[in-house]
Amino acid sequence: MSAPERLSGVFSPVVTPFKADLGPDAARLVRQCRWLLSQNCGLAVFGTNSEANSLSVEEKIDLLDALVDGGVEPRRMMPGTGTCAIPDTVRLTAHAVKRGCAGVLMLPPFYYKGVSDEGLFRAFSEVIERVGDTRLRIYLYHIPPVAQVPITLDLIERLLAAYPGTVVGVKDSSGDWSNTEAMLKRFPGFTVFAGSESFLLRNMRGGGAGCISATANINPAAIHKLYTSWQSPQAEDLQAGLDDIRGVMQKFPMIPALKAAVAHYGDDPAWTRVRPPLVELSEAQRKELIAALDQRGFRMPGLAEVAAAI
Amino acid sequence: MSAPERLSGVFSPVVTPFKADLGPDAARLVRQCRWLLSQNCGLAVFGTNSEANSLSVEEKIDLLDALVDGGVEPRRMMPGTGTCAIPDTVRLTAHAVKRGCAGVLMLPPFYYKGVSDEGLFRAFSEVIERVGDTRLRIYLYHIPPVAQVPITLDLIERLLAAYPGTVVGVKDSSGDWSNTEAMLKRFPGFTVFAGSESFLLRNMRGGGAGCISATANINPAAIHKLYTSWQSPQAEDLQAGLDDIRGVMQKFPMIPALKAAVAHYGDDPAWTRVRPPLVELSEAQRKELIAALDQRGFRMPGLAEVAAAI
Repeated sequence: MSAPERLSGVFSPVVTPFKADLGPDAARLVRQCRWLLSQNCGLAVFGTNSEANSLSVEEKIDLLDALVDGGVEPRRMMPGTGTCAIPDTVRLTAHAVKRGCAGVLMLPPFYYKGVSDEGLFRAFSEVIERVGDTRLRIYLYHIPPVAQVPITLDLIERLLAAYPGTVVGVKDSSGDWSNTEAMLKRFPGFTVFAGSESFLLRNMRGGGAGCISATANINPAAIHKLYTSWQSPQAEDLQAGLDDIRGVMQKFPMIPALKAAVAHYGDDPAWTRVRPPLVELSEAQRKELIAALDQRGFRMPGLAEVAAAI
Repeated sequence: MSAPERLSGVFSPVVTPFKADLGPDAARLVRQCRWLLSQNCGLAVFGTNSEANSLSVEEKIDLLDALVDGGVEPRRMMPGTGTCAIPDTVRLTAHAVKRGCAGVLMLPPFYYKGVSDEGLFRAFSEVIERVGDTRLRIYLYHIPPVAQVPITLDLIERLLAAYPGTVVGVKDSSGDWSNTEAMLKRFPGFTVFAGSESFLLRNMRGGGAGCISATANINPAAIHKLYTSWQSPQAEDLQAGLDDIRGVMQKFPMIPALKAAVAHYGDDPAWTRVRPPLVELSEAQRKELIAALDQRGFRMPGLAEVAAAI
């Protein structure tokens, strides 16, 4: 296999469907990924919004195998592989490389708080050395509101110096545009994804690579449209349209709300299930969400057809 | 096997030794646990201070097997078994029960933040139902400074009502005495461990069961002395002595400092290793730590003999 190209564009941290016994539903995930690809959306499976940290390493390996074996293109995949424990991160990352994934999105180990950049550098180094594969491409995952362990600019600088061909990019889910901007300015050639489409236009104007966003699960085509036409006169209007839909979603717990929308617009109620500690939307919340989206003429074109093709 | 008794006394979240390749060193852990038992200290293996969240489930299962197969008494063990993912927590918890552990110390799933008590109740319920063993005894692990996901009083009340014979106690590592006090008052018969020996005297006076504390790794006999003589006239002095040693330790990153002390007083330098993202003490820190402990006449009696018996 040749070395993977740098990824760019719009990626979805694909929501993970569960069966009635809360086991992962591989067939539904394959279909959902096919639909996302049909909308020009790449696959950041096993992200925060995928409930990936509620899955065991074995479950993630089995799902990845089901996707690739099911014909989903691994060159459009950037699975999340970072866990608290180096052996788990190594195992999942090595498997993703072996299956041909174009890159991995890597959380820092996130249980211990207040750890040093030196400690995080050692953790990433240990993973890279143990995976030991020149095809490995790491996109660092900076999401301090959830992980509580940040990936600082100084840490990035050190990793880039030590592993220039391996550490190639970042997803910045800090929600702080000034941080994304600092990454773009300080590291030319580094692949910077905004962690939300709210920053997509600014990120593209600053030389960024696109976005990896929760709401790309439900609104991928519109987000991709801004990605391809950010230099057009309509760009600001497109951004405003994206912000409007995101604003609706943000009134609810994000993951259950994404799943409620997929269930409704895909006409497939099984999608509402979440794994504890998350809780599905209440019936009242669900109605409020759908009414607000309907009012905006929101649709997920083609999704119901994909779901019907079970 | 008969149902396990309620645990009480002083417990150590036993530090985990690593080999040069950062793999767990089972033989050293067995010896350390024997020494701790000789000091009347119970074994809360796989706690926060054990770097348990830097270990895979497989590594923890192998270590637990090595301990029990090595003759370490499981009725004196309360392994930490809570992880982010229900299947992992179930697997490790079921194994601990099978090997005869008197209880397990269970973190809530800790990746997703801001989750509801309803979601956490469902997570604990799912684990209890899946383990499905009447011998299971859960001690809830409340450590908001690290896990960032709290175990509220309302959640405890709900779990006690639903699983009165299974959910039997808590370790309160909030560092907030008023929270521990509220647990003692609101739940008579609930087994409340203070998360630090700093609160041991207050906890015993309030009807608590003892403490599970980082520094029990190095100062177990003195902590146990206060546990057995908290009603004596010397109790306040004993508490002050414990606070003095803990004060020294808290000037340094706790886990590397514990390991540095074990390495020094046990004359076994291999103990200094930590897994990333943690970093061992610098030479200057180590000297400062040992000087401060030596100045107080600190010793770890019998530890070097245990280490020499490799």
